[in-house]
Amino acid sequence: MNVSELGEFALIARLARTIGAEPPADLIVGIGDDAAAWRAGDSVLLATTDTLVQGVHFLPNLAPWCDIGWKTLAVNVSDIAAMGGEPLFALVTLALPSDTETESVDELYDGLRECAREYGVTIAGGDIVRASEFSITVALIGKAQIRDGEPLLMRRDGARAGDVIAVTGTLGDSAAGLELLEKGCSLDNPFVRAHLRPHPPVRTAQEAARLGIACGIDVSDGLLQDIGHVCVRSGLGANIHASRIPTSATLRDSHLDSALALACAGGEDYQMLFAAPSGLIDQLTLAAGDCLTIIGELVKGEPTARLLDDSGKEIDLPSAGWDHLRRA
Amino acid sequence: MNVSELGEFALIARLARTIGAEPPADLIVGIGDDAAAWRAGDSVLLATTDTLVQGVHFLPNLAPWCDIGWKTLAVNVSDIAAMGGEPLFALVTLALPSDTETESVDELYDGLRECAREYGVTIAGGDIVRASEFSITVALIGKAQIRDGEPLLMRRDGARAGDVIAVTGTLGDSAAGLELLEKGCSLDNPFVRAHLRPHPPVRTAQEAARLGIACGIDVSDGLLQDIGHVCVRSGLGANIHASRIPTSATLRDSHLDSALALACAGGEDYQMLFAAPSGLIDQLTLAAGDCLTIIGELVKGEPTARLLDDSGKEIDLPSAGWDHLRRA
Repeated sequence: MNVSELGEFALIARLARTIGAEPPADLIVGIGDDAAAWRAGDSVLLATTDTLVQGVHFLPNLAPWCDIGWKTLAVNVSDIAAMGGEPLFALVTLALPSDTETESVDELYDGLRECAREYGVTIAGGDIVRASEFSITVALIGKAQIRDGEPLLMRRDGARAGDVIAVTGTLGDSAAGLELLEKGCSLDNPFVRAHLRPHPPVRTAQEAARLGIACGIDVSDGLLQDIGHVCVRSGLGANIHASRIPTSATLRDSHLDSALALACAGGEDYQMLFAAPSGLIDQLTLAAGDCLTIIGELVKGEPTARLLDDSGKEIDLPSAGWDHLRRA
Repeated sequence: MNVSELGEFALIARLARTIGAEPPADLIVGIGDDAAAWRAGDSVLLATTDTLVQGVHFLPNLAPWCDIGWKTLAVNVSDIAAMGGEPLFALVTLALPSDTETESVDELYDGLRECAREYGVTIAGGDIVRASEFSITVALIGKAQIRDGEPLLMRRDGARAGDVIAVTGTLGDSAAGLELLEKGCSLDNPFVRAHLRPHPPVRTAQEAARLGIACGIDVSDGLLQDIGHVCVRSGLGANIHASRIPTSATLRDSHLDSALALACAGGEDYQMLFAAPSGLIDQLTLAAGDCLTIIGELVKGEPTARLLDDSGKEIDLPSAGWDHLRRA
């Protein structure tokens, strides 16, 4: 069997099984969450890594190099934030074809630096290797917030039955932007900007962790798929009410028929999703002042996300979300 | 200008200049050493990353997958050791063509796990992405040894004029192994084993840091090139005595004419090089019980390594070592 038949998530689960036999005492969160968490002295470290490959995650000649730099760091910042943590320093690996123009690399670094400044990250090292296709990998190290010696972590397995599910911002703009980018739309288009320059809501995520919200994930693979990760890890079902899913007015206007599908399955929004008792979500809405929308709730039962219409009937969507190995 | 004209080290220097303008107070060592060092509470973290790309760092159908797994982690362990630190946990990124057999990935992970067990590393997460060529990236997080609140770090810029230069083990076997592997030699050949399964001397490196040795680097790009890094960062010249460079008896017997060149420029030995007052090197030899050889000394002057024959005359070698972007 090859890896595209097995799929990304089955492969990760398979590898996690072969590895996690005897986790050391210092490991708090291992494979299967947004970031790993590790106790080091009086700190709890977080570490995550994400790679963008040319032709797979971005399109040669369409996405400007500086945006690729921004995005590669931003998606890692999003993972640290989803744990409730603070990003600290990054290692950047560039895999470069020999004929890459040094100007392109400079522009890429401009975008990386811009994102690093925005989120208080230091680029502390990395690696440069030759390769036949361009890719960029960021490993980002952060730290958890600590209270009374214990880390304030949001985990995928931290949800309880009865928790409501809330998301920040609006969903689907990034997926609409990708479609437009592929059709040659201007880089100034707001959907295209949303796709190329995600801004993960780090402060809201950190505030959520401080309030005691125990379950969080970033919306990166597509809303339903990401909720599915929470379902599987927490052993719960999720009811998601389609009419409550927040989309931007411009998306609803311009994508009348597809806005819901883009919001549910599009991916790469890099908003945050939290599961918690509704009282905590109310507190977060007050504290963060950010747009936060309750879209559903976690229930006992089969660990999958169900999308419901206003009458409570299940809606089928054509695509389930992003699988890095399956999508051709 | 493209990156192969500029070369790996010039590109790194160029990028480091654009980034390191205002290092935060917590950053102890940034770009340009074996690993970054960062103060986090009462700990000092170390972080490094290295990538192996199929067709560049290893040969498809020649190197077994489990050896590729071992090596990718081992070369990162070597970087943490070269700072005097202890490796803790790793993030592993696999870039896979869709038709990769899952069996190959399993074998790769067998080698990773074996190396992780050997060096007390936990694989705590990672990423899997689709790509047209196979590569594997490890980001390894470790910690520095601490005494009286201060980290015991070995740095490339830690050498002083008058320090002697010492290396562990023998050099050149790995480069000989690569040549043999390319000619189809058996995987049981000891040179081939040295190439596929490096064993960085972590305990000796940690002991060196505890003894107060302030300068270390791993021998990964080729002895002279690696000493060159120490020269540039410490602002010193190095005199290396060719006849003192340790090579294995089997290498001298089988590679009469090329043993010196393989040892000086071959790369991938993953031994350790230290620069320190000779008294400290003597103490390390006693304490570590490892084979340690003094091969030269650091002197004031132009920051390059000079290879000398027994009469003190400089020897020219055809190749200066490994540059990831230049080598075709």
